[in-house]
Amino acid sequence: MTEIEIGMGKSARRAFGFDEVSILPSRRTRNTADVDLTWQIDAFTFDLPLIASAMDAVVSPSTAIEIGRLGGVGALHLEGLWTRHDDPEPILEELATLSDEKVRTRLTELYASPVRGELVRARLIELRDAGVVVAAAVTPQGAPGLLGDIRAAEPDLLVIQGTVVSAEHVARGDEPLNLKQFVRQLETPVLVGGCASYQAALHLMRTGAAGILVGVGAGQASTTRRVLGLGAGQVTAIADARAARMRHLDETGVYVHVIADGGVHTSGDLAKAIVCGADAVMMGSALAAAAEAPGRGYHWGLPAAHATLPRGGRVRVGTRGSLEEILVGPAVDHDGATNLFGGLRKAMALTGHATLKEMQKAELVVGGGAS
Amino acid sequence: MTEIEIGMGKSARRAFGFDEVSILPSRRTRNTADVDLTWQIDAFTFDLPLIASAMDAVVSPSTAIEIGRLGGVGALHLEGLWTRHDDPEPILEELATLSDEKVRTRLTELYASPVRGELVRARLIELRDAGVVVAAAVTPQGAPGLLGDIRAAEPDLLVIQGTVVSAEHVARGDEPLNLKQFVRQLETPVLVGGCASYQAALHLMRTGAAGILVGVGAGQASTTRRVLGLGAGQVTAIADARAARMRHLDETGVYVHVIADGGVHTSGDLAKAIVCGADAVMMGSALAAAAEAPGRGYHWGLPAAHATLPRGGRVRVGTRGSLEEILVGPAVDHDGATNLFGGLRKAMALTGHATLKEMQKAELVVGGGAS
Amino acid sequence: MTEIEIGMGKSARRAFGFDEVSILPSRRTRNTADVDLTWQIDAFTFDLPLIASAMDAVVSPSTAIEIGRLGGVGALHLEGLWTRHDDPEPILEELATLSDEKVRTRLTELYASPVRGELVRARLIELRDAGVVVAAAVTPQGAPGLLGDIRAAEPDLLVIQGTVVSAEHVARGDEPLNLKQFVRQLETPVLVGGCASYQAALHLMRTGAAGILVGVGAGQASTTRRVLGLGAGQVTAIADARAARMRHLDETGVYVHVIADGGVHTSGDLAKAIVCGADAVMMGSALAAAAEAPGRGYHWGLPAAHATLPRGGRVRVGTRGSLEEILVGPAVDHDGATNLFGGLRKAMALTGHATLKEMQKAELVVGGGAS
Amino acid sequence: MTEIEIGMGKSARRAFGFDEVSILPSRRTRNTADVDLTWQIDAFTFDLPLIASAMDAVVSPSTAIEIGRLGGVGALHLEGLWTRHDDPEPILEELATLSDEKVRTRLTELYASPVRGELVRARLIELRDAGVVVAAAVTPQGAPGLLGDIRAAEPDLLVIQGTVVSAEHVARGDEPLNLKQFVRQLETPVLVGGCASYQAALHLMRTGAAGILVGVGAGQASTTRRVLGLGAGQVTAIADARAARMRHLDETGVYVHVIADGGVHTSGDLAKAIVCGADAVMMGSALAAAAEAPGRGYHWGLPAAHATLPRGGRVRVGTRGSLEEILVGPAVDHDGATNLFGGLRKAMALTGHATLKEMQKAELVVGGGAS
Repeated sequence: MTEIEIGMGKSARRAFGFDEVSILPSRRTRNTADVDLTWQIDAFTFDLPLIASAMDAVVSPSTAIEIGRLGGVGALHLEGLWTRHDDPEPILEELATLSDEKVRTRLTELYASPVRGELVRARLIELRDAGVVVAAAVTPQGAPGLLGDIRAAEPDLLVIQGTVVSAEHVARGDEPLNLKQFVRQLETPVLVGGCASYQAALHLMRTGAAGILVGVGAGQASTTRRVLGLGAGQVTAIADARAARMRHLDETGVYVHVIADGGVHTSGDLAKAIVCGADAVMMGSALAAAAEAPGRGYHWGLPAAHATLPRGGRVRVGTRGSLEEILVGPAVDHDGATNLFGGLRKAMALTGHATLKEMQKAELVVGGGAS
Repeated sequence: MTEIEIGMGKSARRAFGFDEVSILPSRRTRNTADVDLTWQIDAFTFDLPLIASAMDAVVSPSTAIEIGRLGGVGALHLEGLWTRHDDPEPILEELATLSDEKVRTRLTELYASPVRGELVRARLIELRDAGVVVAAAVTPQGAPGLLGDIRAAEPDLLVIQGTVVSAEHVARGDEPLNLKQFVRQLETPVLVGGCASYQAALHLMRTGAAGILVGVGAGQASTTRRVLGLGAGQVTAIADARAARMRHLDETGVYVHVIADGGVHTSGDLAKAIVCGADAVMMGSALAAAAEAPGRGYHWGLPAAHATLPRGGRVRVGTRGSLEEILVGPAVDHDGATNLFGGLRKAMALTGHATLKEMQKAELVVGGGAS
Repeated sequence: MTEIEIGMGKSARRAFGFDEVSILPSRRTRNTADVDLTWQIDAFTFDLPLIASAMDAVVSPSTAIEIGRLGGVGALHLEGLWTRHDDPEPILEELATLSDEKVRTRLTELYASPVRGELVRARLIELRDAGVVVAAAVTPQGAPGLLGDIRAAEPDLLVIQGTVVSAEHVARGDEPLNLKQFVRQLETPVLVGGCASYQAALHLMRTGAAGILVGVGAGQASTTRRVLGLGAGQVTAIADARAARMRHLDETGVYVHVIADGGVHTSGDLAKAIVCGADAVMMGSALAAAAEAPGRGYHWGLPAAHATLPRGGRVRVGTRGSLEEILVGPAVDHDGATNLFGGLRKAMALTGHATLKEMQKAELVVGGGAS
Repeated sequence: MTEIEIGMGKSARRAFGFDEVSILPSRRTRNTADVDLTWQIDAFTFDLPLIASAMDAVVSPSTAIEIGRLGGVGALHLEGLWTRHDDPEPILEELATLSDEKVRTRLTELYASPVRGELVRARLIELRDAGVVVAAAVTPQGAPGLLGDIRAAEPDLLVIQGTVVSAEHVARGDEPLNLKQFVRQLETPVLVGGCASYQAALHLMRTGAAGILVGVGAGQASTTRRVLGLGAGQVTAIADARAARMRHLDETGVYVHVIADGGVHTSGDLAKAIVCGADAVMMGSALAAAAEAPGRGYHWGLPAAHATLPRGGRVRVGTRGSLEEILVGPAVDHDGATNLFGGLRKAMALTGHATLKEMQKAELVVGGGAS
């Protein structure tokens, strides 16, 4: 670790973000047709190493089904609009028409409605019936209360996600979620995060999770950096989690997946995330720009609805193309925002790597600017 | 210290500012309800580690009282409008209506009126009567002349503040303020600054001050960097002062408080200042944006009124919310400018720290950009 | 190599671009009249170390002839509009009038027409008849199919160019281009690229090429960095290729030329490319701004016509002056976009270097900004 | 020297500019009244360490006289408009009214008129008669032809200035200026430059010059960096020249003055230049903004009039105040562009330095941004 003395009484590590690095082609190239993007986790095999973010502007039951059909998986948030309201479609329609001034209060109001168990079960059954891999998401705070419904609906994958999730949550008075105990009492494989350091990643892996989400406030809809001062370059955070994965594998023989969450806006970012060490990528704002996206050109996360300390608002992302065009093309532009996985495939071909695991070995350079 | 050879005949240290660092969450989290923001200095305990800057756009007797009620303390400048004019309110009203072209001359004029001892005493008595901790501020130049009035009014805390204040001021001819002697002949605990290096901080601590202000021209209303070329990254300056605090404590057994002054615009900056080593934070422009602020949407400091070498002008800051909303929420936006201490509390919870002293141990990273 | 640990599980090298470096004058200067810009490769001697990029917006038969007359050489792309269409002039005219929305589809359409062998031969004969050095370009994919026509027309130089070209292309099923075999069965000297690392450069040199093109997506018309995440600072890429040239020379006694391709927009960039180690420079967008340029104020590359993953679009470059003014002056402005080689000559004079080979020894500094 | 490997085949040094550094106050302060800005060179003593750039937009006979009255010295260019035309005032008036398109041609035309010996002598006599120190400037190319007139007029200081001036100019055929011989055959002390490295500075010092100008294309009116790629951070260039001054002093016992030329726009830059090691500063664009400036709100240098390779054009600088306000105040704004030497004096006071030579010992930091 490169420690920098930032003052006589404090040191810090240098961290890097996607914009600061590039992938260096080397002496071998390959045909795109020979590149394999398959991602296997637990008993599941996906054509694309993609989890769509559990955000109401991105994943509704219908987009989760379409994303599944295209080869990835969409995680439906069990504490979002779809489990608080019978019919969220008119609500989503309304949100798209509100002014920036009015939308914050309305979001807080809409997310204050109680989560209803029967809706949790109904939404998951809808996904199950469509034949796609069923992924659901909860917060660490919401998880215990939803345990019964989750067990009843049996999703294929469960995402436990907060701004920062730790294996050691300290609370005086009432008992906090014991992640290790919670993960082990479920049969469903669990993905848990965000985290952003080697130690945090390692301890999350030790809870028995199948995968961890790497990133803290890195998404476009987040203002965690301004509001909380928290952050870590995604490049560094992923590479640290990779080191934790190696150590955990060495200690236990278990390979825990590293899922880059946040900051992936283009196919170039996607390729860089894999090279840093990610097994798969969680994407939100890039998919909120789909024609089918429930956000209708807008994007927001749960923290935007926080009553006293919102960290992010409703962000305008526009519409770039269909989910299919955004994920697997053909591209409708040339700036890397559509045909995301076609771009990844081409990047792998031009650096001579046939699989995601091989692509993790590609070389990176820091800097170099536009020329 | 990381010395960089900037040329064959000169070296320099690398310094860092708030925008260049982020706080790295680690493997532990905590409930916000269990976080304690209490700050103790001398005989006083504050709910919030906050001193509002002794600037006329921020602290009037009434805002000092409101800030005290909310848990912090506001320092009233004894060489500002409130001690030069019987009724500053119409003057503040007038300043808010003047054009940028006219306001500089008018400021110079208004600050040329003499400071009146009876107003000094009356303003401090008004604060005392309101039951809040009474803090007053003077410049090193103005301090000797106001000594009698200060002793008569007995503020709880005295701030001695200039662009750069040193323990060794050299003057030919007339005698300069002997800080050590001045501090020791007062019973009031003294906070003194600005300073920006280990040596300067250490020597200020040795004057017997209860706390030192760290920062040189770092505030939004200052152009010290352009006009004088002086500066130091706040992150580095605070960390250096922390090292001086450790040495002074080791040598004398006395803990002198480090108060970050300047550059704290968001709750994220506030959290970073604590992590760098600050015990408390002095804030100006962030509070000038309060609905109750005397500046009525504008902000300026004493140097803006300098007749021949102004370093800063009247800056438009707008109105973001009430003092209460800005300090303790609820936030009225999501960019970290309101509910400042709610943001600090959340940052401490997400990094697992229960007290300010513990939060000083959190880890920082340099860089990483937005992703 | 300066390795930076970007995270605990991954390292990267620091790379630099033209904008980050400057040439440091030293203790000797020289008259411009005594500076010699001659470039010799194989049996050819050029007054200017320039190859105009094989892009339809830059090189048509007539501009290739004019560039040859001015002392450089223009490479005609054998898979561009001139070998797919009988008369590209009306097509180029049409492209200049289309809106940004319509032009992408039209480009894809126009470049979908088949390459015709008789046009390949006719275009090259036209160049031959004009008495200039004849340079033609192909992609690695297109090369095998055009072998017969290339042999028939016997260009003086052949450029084999793709986004990334490697000496070891892996393909399952059908046989890929064997570069080494292809290069050795031609009598024409071959220039091949792009590449961007020491290893890639070294292996391309070992194919028997007379020169290699250094640069990956560095051109103005490219969005390779956003779409694929690939890149390398041109300064670093050229310096790495220079090291490969030294090793190859040491191993084989053969001097393979390093041609900087992409990112050279001004005469200052041109001078920096030579100092980094380039023997000559390939330029596109700078020449697309010529009054005679076929692009008529626009610039694009072959990747812009890709049907499913375009990497770049039609870029507006405007018109800066005649080809003569742009290459050898007089300058029509003072920003380094015209009289490119006059600027190089002056830079060589002010650093005291008489030949390109000497100029490669000039000193560089990193940083320093505008003052 | 910190060498950075920019690629496997090339290294470079890290260089710094004024914007990248700040002056760190330390533990001592001082009264401004006790600060002494006196600069002594050869037999002359100046109240201000200032040479106004020999540029027609800055120095005319009348502004040279006014600058002399204010304590500095203005260098009149003997190859500018004042020695080519009988009455330049109507010409300067005309230039201020021309459009950007037309002004370049007109400049080239006006500077093509021959330099007339009788005007050279008349202009210098006008300055002599006004009682100020008389400084004249020539280019290395123009110097030999003007030798007779210079000897006749006997200026007090002679500036020999070009973009890059070296002690070893190589020319085939006609004999170049032998700087060493030229300097030694004059009785007038000579200032010579620009240069930007230790070696170049040392060799210029060895010519017998009384001072050297440090800076290559660093001025606001220059585009040397874009056109020629040449440059060096001013901070690094001055610090290198300081090291050369120490060596030369050690070898010969002669103290050669280092004059920072270019990049000084504010009083903060001025203070930084002194701290880096400059004995005095040459300023152009800052003074072109004076109400009395011949450029009438515009600024340009001799290279703007070059017929085939102009490096810089006419730049709009506006009018900030009188020469007196710009140099010694009172300031008419708060951004450091007026009362330049009042700002320097204050910076010296706040860092506790009484003389320029002491100020050269102040500490610098690199970075730290705005907070």
